[in-house]
Amino acid sequence: MDETIAVVGAGLIGRAWAVVFARAGFAVRLQDTDAEALARSEAAVAETLADLEQAGLCGKPERILRLITRHAELETALEGVTYVQECGPEDVGLKRRLFSALEAAASSDAILASSTSGITATDFAGHLDRPERCLVAHPVNPPSLVPLVEVVPGARTGSDCVARTLALMRRVGQVPIHVRKEIEGFVLNRLQGALLTEALRLYRDGYVSAEDLDRTVRDGLGRRWSFMGPFETIDLNAPGGVVDYARRYGPLYTAIDRQRHDTPPWQPEVLERLAVELRAVRPAGALEKRRAWRDRRLMALSVHLGDAASESET
Amino acid sequence: MDETIAVVGAGLIGRAWAVVFARAGFAVRLQDTDAEALARSEAAVAETLADLEQAGLCGKPERILRLITRHAELETALEGVTYVQECGPEDVGLKRRLFSALEAAASSDAILASSTSGITATDFAGHLDRPERCLVAHPVNPPSLVPLVEVVPGARTGSDCVARTLALMRRVGQVPIHVRKEIEGFVLNRLQGALLTEALRLYRDGYVSAEDLDRTVRDGLGRRWSFMGPFETIDLNAPGGVVDYARRYGPLYTAIDRQRHDTPPWQPEVLERLAVELRAVRPAGALEKRRAWRDRRLMALSVHLGDAASESET
Repeated sequence: MDETIAVVGAGLIGRAWAVVFARAGFAVRLQDTDAEALARSEAAVAETLADLEQAGLCGKPERILRLITRHAELETALEGVTYVQECGPEDVGLKRRLFSALEAAASSDAILASSTSGITATDFAGHLDRPERCLVAHPVNPPSLVPLVEVVPGARTGSDCVARTLALMRRVGQVPIHVRKEIEGFVLNRLQGALLTEALRLYRDGYVSAEDLDRTVRDGLGRRWSFMGPFETIDLNAPGGVVDYARRYGPLYTAIDRQRHDTPPWQPEVLERLAVELRAVRPAGALEKRRAWRDRRLMALSVHLGDAASESET
Repeated sequence: MDETIAVVGAGLIGRAWAVVFARAGFAVRLQDTDAEALARSEAAVAETLADLEQAGLCGKPERILRLITRHAELETALEGVTYVQECGPEDVGLKRRLFSALEAAASSDAILASSTSGITATDFAGHLDRPERCLVAHPVNPPSLVPLVEVVPGARTGSDCVARTLALMRRVGQVPIHVRKEIEGFVLNRLQGALLTEALRLYRDGYVSAEDLDRTVRDGLGRRWSFMGPFETIDLNAPGGVVDYARRYGPLYTAIDRQRHDTPPWQPEVLERLAVELRAVRPAGALEKRRAWRDRRLMALSVHLGDAASESET
């Protein structure tokens, strides 16, 4: 591939994006003004690639590592690239200044995409001369293990920029969705937030323990959701499909939705109580090890889902 | 095992419960006054067991099938059993009459559990002489493929009855949770409803296509949720655990929760539009085949999750 990608910011997300693009064969320029972060990224990327190779999820790490170069200067990093994935801090003022610098340094046909989970393209790029080539490409953390990417245009983003970003994401093996209009939390965090807020209410009000709440999703709802979405799930769960399902369960869900108008449960005292319960199962010192376990499970699940998809769709 | 279980009602759910208890080694009396349903259940159970054996999820079908006997009369079905799993229609009047008959026919120490997803034990057993031995044991459909069971006591259910039901469910390989107080939709459907209602709002308001909505869960949120619950997920997603996570995302989720006070989206015109979009991908004639595909995927996932749990927790 002769296209080159720039990843701006060498923190956790930036490093994972570098892995995503390089394992798909793209030359990657990883840029950070923080020399230490840049230096640290080398070993971190190598470790991620070794884990992925062991799980059977990428080719030889040496070949992939050679595709990633490191840069302190924005100007050299962006020279001739066709796509920039910005991974800076979540601060609107900082992002606006950073996008001004990206606009100045990037060639005129380059797409400027932000990994932000909370700032809209209208906000971080509205002041630019050419906002039509700017948009959000929000990954799940880390994108090297979870394929979904939310592609969210701003009010002035061009449709060509959206189409090219969706195509690039598919080409590197991610699963992009097109969020058609800007909305707080985009789609993924709104869905996660709806479930979490109800979960926290049920916990706060004494209906269920934290562990039983987790079991409900892990050993119940989450199974089907790992290979079908929620709409396909309910479409298959009534003889006549989704309309039939809504006839049976719509009134219940509407009633529950109407009950949900009390104080939102994201209150410090609720969280402190939840933390005590979670720490009893996993002490603070065990979290790091558990994160490594999670990443191994995600890799094993990727392999399983790939194998199952190719075998059992007949 | 010398305990015998009665399953009352030989429909989809009753048949799956018979498989769950018999594959764990219990003698099962499957009862239905509908002779045709009872006759049909024989082939259906055999087919389920053949599929499970092929996936490596149960032993020899012949041995398991021999543990299941069929009965038209409630009195003979319940004689000497220690646990009754009721799987009748979702109608409160019917259920009250059925539980009166169960109380009359069952021995005095037998637990009387209902598979209902929507009627509380207080409602269906409040009128009995001994409501303390009645409760809800609500499975995910089908319990032979998805292990979660919600154990929900009524106002007058005894704590011994809850403890025995939880223990029995664990013994047969299900994953029970204890819902401490009755609430509409219990825990699982409230969580599912919260996510579905937000999903339907985003779809109705034009933010996302049905297919992209499904992708968001399948290729994003659902991956971690198939082996961790939502609380464990957020506990690992911020350096300082769940309290740290809530500091970062609680304000966003609270804001989203407050926006959720418009008309609930479970309206016929929204569902009709969604159905058109879903039918374009899977015509009505393809749903049955897709359900068989879903069940194969659930079995393959069970095998994967079992293997991964034993291998990668170090």
